[in-house]
Amino acid sequence: TAQAPAQGSSMPAVEWRMGTSWPISLDTIYGGATVLAERVAELSNGMFKITTFPAGELFPGLEVVQNVSQGTVESGHTALYYYVGLDPAWAFGTSLPFGLTAQQQNSWLYHGGGEAAINKLGQNFNVISFAAGNTGTQMGGWFRREINTVADLQGLKMRIPGLGAQVLKNLGVVTQTLPGGEIFQALSTGAIDAAEWVGPYDDEKLGLPDAAEFYYAPGWWEPGPSLHAVFNLDAWNKLPKEYQNFIRVAAWESNMNMLAKYDALNNDALERIVAKGKKLRVYSDEIMNAAQKASFELYAGYESAAFKEIFPSWNAFRQKIQRWHQTNELPFNVFVKNNPI
Amino acid sequence: TAQAPAQGSSMPAVEWRMGTSWPISLDTIYGGATVLAERVAELSNGMFKITTFPAGELFPGLEVVQNVSQGTVESGHTALYYYVGLDPAWAFGTSLPFGLTAQQQNSWLYHGGGEAAINKLGQNFNVISFAAGNTGTQMGGWFRREINTVADLQGLKMRIPGLGAQVLKNLGVVTQTLPGGEIFQALSTGAIDAAEWVGPYDDEKLGLPDAAEFYYAPGWWEPGPSLHAVFNLDAWNKLPKEYQNFIRVAAWESNMNMLAKYDALNNDALERIVAKGKKLRVYSDEIMNAAQKASFELYAGYESAAFKEIFPSWNAFRQKIQRWHQTNELPFNVFVKNNPI
Repeated sequence: TAQAPAQGSSMPAVEWRMGTSWPISLDTIYGGATVLAERVAELSNGMFKITTFPAGELFPGLEVVQNVSQGTVESGHTALYYYVGLDPAWAFGTSLPFGLTAQQQNSWLYHGGGEAAINKLGQNFNVISFAAGNTGTQMGGWFRREINTVADLQGLKMRIPGLGAQVLKNLGVVTQTLPGGEIFQALSTGAIDAAEWVGPYDDEKLGLPDAAEFYYAPGWWEPGPSLHAVFNLDAWNKLPKEYQNFIRVAAWESNMNMLAKYDALNNDALERIVAKGKKLRVYSDEIMNAAQKASFELYAGYESAAFKEIFPSWNAFRQKIQRWHQTNELPFNVFVKNNPI
Repeated sequence: TAQAPAQGSSMPAVEWRMGTSWPISLDTIYGGATVLAERVAELSNGMFKITTFPAGELFPGLEVVQNVSQGTVESGHTALYYYVGLDPAWAFGTSLPFGLTAQQQNSWLYHGGGEAAINKLGQNFNVISFAAGNTGTQMGGWFRREINTVADLQGLKMRIPGLGAQVLKNLGVVTQTLPGGEIFQALSTGAIDAAEWVGPYDDEKLGLPDAAEFYYAPGWWEPGPSLHAVFNLDAWNKLPKEYQNFIRVAAWESNMNMLAKYDALNNDALERIVAKGKKLRVYSDEIMNAAQKASFELYAGYESAAFKEIFPSWNAFRQKIQRWHQTNELPFNVFVKNNPI
């Protein structure tokens, strides 16, 4: 029932750059940026163009927020927990050890006050962010030797970012953050003893199965990490309201699409890795319990005003949503695992 | 960096009606329709208006697909498994007993061939559909008496739609489908012995905690049911490409938003229900195993060409994604449940 054509609003030509933390080869996580850019271009009939750049092309992959903040580029795509050195509260935007799964993280962001909390923090850095991707529960990383106890962690050199690094540091690990594209060389040469990236599909693309023998699960330090599209607040505020809407809605698609894609691809990659003879291991209860205890001790000790403000409501949300999922989805998943068909 | 303003495309005024299966009081599931309509209106600067209608206002709540198919209205919002009487393959659009969780269902729809399969089926009914909501794993329903064994199911009168109804029928239950707004009266008067709707937040709104004593988990017949926005194919094909894009992207938001909202609300409602003295029960392994066996026997027996075509790839996808989630997210969730903090 199309009626008499009327005049839509005129749309200005806008060209933005989006610097990311990812190599282009990782179509999953780099896709968080490109899906958003493509959708915005489509919704605006090509008038609003966002060009995406891989890590290192405009600036280093772990300096996205700094560069968006300063206006080097108008936008970026990154994991906010790369910036816990600026403020540990950035971790809430991505994932906290023993925190939320992907589905729980999205519930917190959209209906638990999370997005508002992240953007209140963002004002201190002149940025506004929208979730634009999630990897799902990550793997627990690649190790050149088996680790069974907390004693085995002492002095281990590991690539791991975010608060997970701080937890492992408190358990005796020597941690460092490297962009994805630099992990293989460090691990395969033995410059580091262990490294975590994301999960089977991405880890395979980075060559990690050829760099170490042992593959651990679960990735307790990031049970459901979000990636974010980040925008310079001055640029954002000057954008036509219509284009702001295009970005917001495109971010929903980007967010959900990435998780759906990872979930569809990871098992085949995992089976290839196992077929190669790589050894799949589960973290011992000793390590998991020590790590959980160290995590919540860490949370209790942060002096960051933002962290202190966000933590109590985040933690109450976590406990509630875990109870709900433990009532219903978890018993279903446990039954299905124990009674395969 | 806004540049010289250029002319966007002109947008025609379009007004559509969307008939739904839901009472307005269920802001969660009815919200699947209104979020989509609001976003489309916003993206089109108010030029494309979709007006939503509750169940029964334009036509009965369980006849959405038929009415969209015939063009009574241009669009609808419903659960596709209400239409398994037309073709059992419609169940894939929503949920199959012992099938996919919400996260798995979305992965199948977007990256496992699901959306294409549903829309190939839709061509037989002159409709095209996009996922626009998910409830998460549902509860296993309200019962006026305890059920522990398959023997307890014999002759039980229960409100349950979709393939779950066919499974329970094969286990001895007398099933019927009622729209949400009619369940309370049937259950509270004892016209039926049991009923399932969605989960704590919605069930409370429908008054079900005042109609029966026992509340079962998990909802094994719908571990992750999608809701869909459905469009008459002739109307869809006449729509400007730009408006088709608005609907598609708005559906992503609607899809994800509903699940995030349910997950944020269900635990508080569950606690109120338990505080009322209602008795939370878990299905016995006897019933779960009998139901799982009956489910896959049912799937093997369908003559529907569409069901036969979709099932093998859906089932292979299910087994793979379950293995992935059992490798990583499940061990994490089990640890967290057993070691609460």
